[in-house]
Amino acid sequence: MNTRMILRTLGQILQIFAALLLLPLGVSLLHRESPLPLLIPLSGAALVGLLFSLLRPKTTAIFARDGFVIVGLGWMLISLFGALPFYLSGALPTYVDALFESVSGLTTTGATVVTDLVGMPRGVMFWRLFSHWIGGMGVLVFLMAVLPMSGKHSMHIFRAEVPGPTKGKLVPRARQTARVLYMIYIALTLLEAIFLLCGGMSFYDAILHAFATAGTGGFSTNPASIAGFGSRYIETVVAVFMMLFGVNFNLYFLLLIGSWKDALKNEELHWYLGLIFGAVLALTMGLLKTYGGFAAAFHQAFFNVNAIMSTTGFGTVDFTVWPEYGKWILVLLMFCGGCAGSTSGGMKLSRLMILFKTVVSELRQMVRPRSVQRVEMDGRRVEAGTIRAAAIFAVLYFALLLLFSFLVSLDGVDLATSFTAALSCLSNVGPGMTAAIGPAGSFAFFSLRTKLFMSLAMLLGRLELYPILVLFSPRTWKN
Amino acid sequence: MNTRMILRTLGQILQIFAALLLLPLGVSLLHRESPLPLLIPLSGAALVGLLFSLLRPKTTAIFARDGFVIVGLGWMLISLFGALPFYLSGALPTYVDALFESVSGLTTTGATVVTDLVGMPRGVMFWRLFSHWIGGMGVLVFLMAVLPMSGKHSMHIFRAEVPGPTKGKLVPRARQTARVLYMIYIALTLLEAIFLLCGGMSFYDAILHAFATAGTGGFSTNPASIAGFGSRYIETVVAVFMMLFGVNFNLYFLLLIGSWKDALKNEELHWYLGLIFGAVLALTMGLLKTYGGFAAAFHQAFFNVNAIMSTTGFGTVDFTVWPEYGKWILVLLMFCGGCAGSTSGGMKLSRLMILFKTVVSELRQMVRPRSVQRVEMDGRRVEAGTIRAAAIFAVLYFALLLLFSFLVSLDGVDLATSFTAALSCLSNVGPGMTAAIGPAGSFAFFSLRTKLFMSLAMLLGRLELYPILVLFSPRTWKN
Repeated sequence: MNTRMILRTLGQILQIFAALLLLPLGVSLLHRESPLPLLIPLSGAALVGLLFSLLRPKTTAIFARDGFVIVGLGWMLISLFGALPFYLSGALPTYVDALFESVSGLTTTGATVVTDLVGMPRGVMFWRLFSHWIGGMGVLVFLMAVLPMSGKHSMHIFRAEVPGPTKGKLVPRARQTARVLYMIYIALTLLEAIFLLCGGMSFYDAILHAFATAGTGGFSTNPASIAGFGSRYIETVVAVFMMLFGVNFNLYFLLLIGSWKDALKNEELHWYLGLIFGAVLALTMGLLKTYGGFAAAFHQAFFNVNAIMSTTGFGTVDFTVWPEYGKWILVLLMFCGGCAGSTSGGMKLSRLMILFKTVVSELRQMVRPRSVQRVEMDGRRVEAGTIRAAAIFAVLYFALLLLFSFLVSLDGVDLATSFTAALSCLSNVGPGMTAAIGPAGSFAFFSLRTKLFMSLAMLLGRLELYPILVLFSPRTWKN
Repeated sequence: MNTRMILRTLGQILQIFAALLLLPLGVSLLHRESPLPLLIPLSGAALVGLLFSLLRPKTTAIFARDGFVIVGLGWMLISLFGALPFYLSGALPTYVDALFESVSGLTTTGATVVTDLVGMPRGVMFWRLFSHWIGGMGVLVFLMAVLPMSGKHSMHIFRAEVPGPTKGKLVPRARQTARVLYMIYIALTLLEAIFLLCGGMSFYDAILHAFATAGTGGFSTNPASIAGFGSRYIETVVAVFMMLFGVNFNLYFLLLIGSWKDALKNEELHWYLGLIFGAVLALTMGLLKTYGGFAAAFHQAFFNVNAIMSTTGFGTVDFTVWPEYGKWILVLLMFCGGCAGSTSGGMKLSRLMILFKTVVSELRQMVRPRSVQRVEMDGRRVEAGTIRAAAIFAVLYFALLLLFSFLVSLDGVDLATSFTAALSCLSNVGPGMTAAIGPAGSFAFFSLRTKLFMSLAMLLGRLELYPILVLFSPRTWKN
């Protein structure tokens, strides 16, 4: 293990983190609030970062293991520093609560333990929603975008941080890729902010909610979430952008370079839109009575399907009072998440597609053992290794879901609460499916122990399990 | 597809089924009850079976596909005939209810929709618990034990019907194997009946409950299940035998031929006992207050852990009032089930062991990409194909669980009820984890549509998915 190189990279991450904190600090100063809740973590991260980055490793070469460790520890470090503003401002009573909020922000989960949103200083609130935007694309991808690195170095990090079952052709040129992705990300965020401004949102709210949508996070400045703005136009804009941010960013890249056909032929996109359409239709039918008419039912179905499937978790209504089958539709979408290469959470659609196609081909093989069955995506054969990895990932995902459900249940909450709380954390969605933790509820009542478990689940989900699991393996730390 | 050979084999199955119905018919006659509820299905099955078995196929060769179709359709056929006694005796109001009870019996699930157990004729009750015993070992294994068949013929059937991720060395000599397994099965059943008789149970109850335990079913003649006999001795005997019937029968075979060492070295057995021990300990601690003392808490924990893990589902207390984490322990055990090659349901422990070991080796491989990782069971390497099959099976199991949860929720039951009802059916356990469907509840209140879905889930679980799934694939029916 190249310890010095790992520490040096962690130092660089902390320095970038400190630089990013300048923005909320500016907001804080602009509103003449106490700068300390932001200044202390900023200086702390800058100082530790500086110390670490002074290390001179004998070689800059890093291996797969080092990549995992950098990503895993990097996310833990910035979560720890990112918790300080919530704690120091008094917005949250304990450091563990603040850590939960910080992890929930950075992993773009959006489950909150803050009970008094209105009293939160504007600078800290800015940090809260800004953290979604940072976490959405990944701090380390950002690192690669701004720092010169060797190709191999960045590849290991890119592999470990960017979601999805396969890393496309773009991977080897990680630095350029990271820059292009960030440009698309920024452009879409600005576009949403402009649309929201047009709907009468304040500049501050528009920017912050665009951040939160872009990262598919779900925190809001308003205690009633998006419903609090009382505008169907705003709800629609947010719903459409939640859908857009659940799409693989490579497709936007293809659009950008004029390959419309390639982008629109993408199989995962078809499934994504098909699932959204199907779920919206099924829910609209079931909600006609609840919301008195097709238009209103369709609106609520469209907003909430996109809120859940993109794993953003913004709220307009309390869907825990919906018909039971409607809740199951949302639970199934929670498992899915959006497309690979998007900022969304969950297991990712392309992974589930690979597994679905594998099961179909397996059945065909059983019926006709001598036939040759291939699993294909976008016209190309999916390799056996990719199938194996997707299947093992899915098994591990379910196993961890059951494990965390059990751990949450130690708080004495009922089965539906522990199960959907664990799923919501692991898939980085935000709300659960029972009243206590639904869109109208909060995660504040859980014990500190459970909040730590949940923070771990959120990190596992955001980093697609392995970078965190690797940290718990004794072999990682042996030389 | 060798249609004539399939029909002929189905005919043989029906004839065996008719022969097995002679036993409950005898009980019926002995108690001077109307013989019609048993005589009609008996004659019907005998007649249809005779017609089918008169077919002379051009060749007796069958292939994998035919094996699946025989097993899938065979189970459906005997479920349909097996439902008639419940319907014709008036024990259940509709044929769909009777079908649910029949499938629940034959798949050894033990979820009941009968509301008046006391009023049920003795002959029909005998059939109800006897069906567990038939279904536990498999009707087709029985077929092989009594009929002369070609080796290849029986292997395809054996593969499709006998549970577990790998079929051991015994498979090629399917006929002898089937006979040995049935001998062990009969001996253990008799042994339990004798123990129960010693505890003061009536001959009728002792035999029937031994049948139900042997098949890891869970139906009882008593509305209060095992608790109804009010004897801690009887509860303990049943608990121990539930544990024994969850063990791989090959191990008893090894004991029989004197290979004690091989039997006791079996890894799956160690995990099985370890999990039981761990779960009993964790539950005992949580139940000390509920049952006022260690001995009583241990007794309830031991009984119910074995009832759930062996997927029998007998009841002594209503565990839906246990602490929430205790319910999650039982839910996790429901997923597991017992050992491969036992009469228990669930995913089977050895399959989960293979997956667990694969995940561990995968993590090691990630940390050290150049190292060579092997997955081993009982000192032998597990082949890649077996790992792949186990992973795909697990993914499919979870996917079907979520699908059936959704389908059950269409009845408007809450999330915990739909989820654990679907799991209980798929794993062939019996009770669910909420009061309505727990040990003190019943499945009677579900809609007929849901009862059909649940019947399908039980068949899928008992036959380890594929023989039923294959029936739904259009390719199966194309030549």
